[in-house]
Amino acid sequence: MSTGWTTPAPDALRATAQPRVAELDPRSTPGFIGDKKTGQLLTAQRATVLADLQEMLYANGRSGDRRSVLLVLQGMDTAGKGGVVKHVVGAVDPQGVSHTSFGVPTEEERSHHYLWRIRKALPRPGQLGVFDRSHYEDVLVVRVHNLVPPSVWEPRYDEINAFERELVEGGTTLVKVAMVISPAEQKVRLAERLTQPDKYWKYNPRDLDERALWPEYQAAYQAVLERTDTDLAPWYVVPSDRKWYTRLAVTELLIAALQSLDLRWPPADFDVEVEQQRVAALTDPTS
Amino acid sequence: MSTGWTTPAPDALRATAQPRVAELDPRSTPGFIGDKKTGQLLTAQRATVLADLQEMLYANGRSGDRRSVLLVLQGMDTAGKGGVVKHVVGAVDPQGVSHTSFGVPTEEERSHHYLWRIRKALPRPGQLGVFDRSHYEDVLVVRVHNLVPPSVWEPRYDEINAFERELVEGGTTLVKVAMVISPAEQKVRLAERLTQPDKYWKYNPRDLDERALWPEYQAAYQAVLERTDTDLAPWYVVPSDRKWYTRLAVTELLIAALQSLDLRWPPADFDVEVEQQRVAALTDPTS
Repeated sequence: MSTGWTTPAPDALRATAQPRVAELDPRSTPGFIGDKKTGQLLTAQRATVLADLQEMLYANGRSGDRRSVLLVLQGMDTAGKGGVVKHVVGAVDPQGVSHTSFGVPTEEERSHHYLWRIRKALPRPGQLGVFDRSHYEDVLVVRVHNLVPPSVWEPRYDEINAFERELVEGGTTLVKVAMVISPAEQKVRLAERLTQPDKYWKYNPRDLDERALWPEYQAAYQAVLERTDTDLAPWYVVPSDRKWYTRLAVTELLIAALQSLDLRWPPADFDVEVEQQRVAALTDPTS
Repeated sequence: MSTGWTTPAPDALRATAQPRVAELDPRSTPGFIGDKKTGQLLTAQRATVLADLQEMLYANGRSGDRRSVLLVLQGMDTAGKGGVVKHVVGAVDPQGVSHTSFGVPTEEERSHHYLWRIRKALPRPGQLGVFDRSHYEDVLVVRVHNLVPPSVWEPRYDEINAFERELVEGGTTLVKVAMVISPAEQKVRLAERLTQPDKYWKYNPRDLDERALWPEYQAAYQAVLERTDTDLAPWYVVPSDRKWYTRLAVTELLIAALQSLDLRWPPADFDVEVEQQRVAALTDPTS
């Protein structure tokens, strides 16, 4: 673990180590005592570690290893999911990344089970999958807005746990991140999106309706954490009022997940010396 | 166009402006008179221009614009396709990127038309799609190895032109890049992959069999350029012995493609002043 961290990020941020969502301080920086500048420098340094580990995962995937990593990002509007994708996932070779945003389900998606679109987007072996929102929307927005009755959403927690167990057994390491901001910080970020024409596209008037349901969302998130945080597929709660901390924390969570795979470069499936001699003996095939 | 370029990249690199593949100098730097250091600095600078343009494309995609860009990368093994993905596409927000590598077709893929797997991987509106190899394999490796008779691959050039016309009419701007290296440079790069265990996974003994068919591949590439370079879906031939030039050139080709779309930030579909007032009036929904 690097300078500034007093507790490894996965330990400090695990849902069970954090206060309830409604009591969490979104400006806190669990496990990290460095300041913003230190945090930013560290994120930049650790980005190369993350990229190297991901390349090793990808190399193994090409060599028959079935493992993958799936980052699940959940949070209220403006929590910074897009920023994590751009600044943390952006450090990784696009070759090994599979990114999916889950918006309001399309008509086709609605005609299927809610996990249908999720299964279609799962990372392939060697990939870092990134879900910007996910199957958890089906126990968050769906629950808050009563889009289906409790008798329908209530069994979903167990169903999700079973689904994720299946993913883990198939070789996918899940990193589930709940990003928590304060209403005050959200207000600042919403206002920012209305200052310049190049930000308007990120603003949606309906986000204000969701904001009005903040306590309901807090309760829904709390239920998610209580019912779907498992040792196999843990939830991390990342206070997200400070963007620099969010990005540092997710970088560390991904590094820890990749390190837990104990990856090595795949051994050559050919005789290295023989191939070296073959290559050394190559002549110009065009002459 | 930036310092160092005497001719805009799309003009200098267009297939029709270049010598035949067999006569091309893979160390040449068409249109660019700067040295390696200048080229590298320029690539870094222009990466932010590329990222900004792509963000604008993505923003428009979110606002109903159907347009997308598709980068098609073709080239012999070690030509640097992966390097372009990592270093050029890597500059773009992963949120707006859709990357697909096309390897040897799977059994399921072989049971379908060769364009089936291609259609499934097309970029969505607002995305930069990247194909590492593509439908052109079906007139390259397939032709060189006689995997199907000429009566089958021969009609594919026209079919590909029709397919690409369909893509263009659907709003996709194609940037097709043929990366040309010399056998000498390939030998160096193959040897490099055998020097360290972290490179072994990139080495495949069968690449040497493909190399032995170099003249046949040159002829197959030449046919591709002659029969599928169209004004709607142009081919660019990028000499690729110098990695820095390849990356600079593809950066410029993508920038030019995005600039040709004449993108603007999408206008707000709400009343900005009204929303500013609504946001300013927001109170804490939890208290």
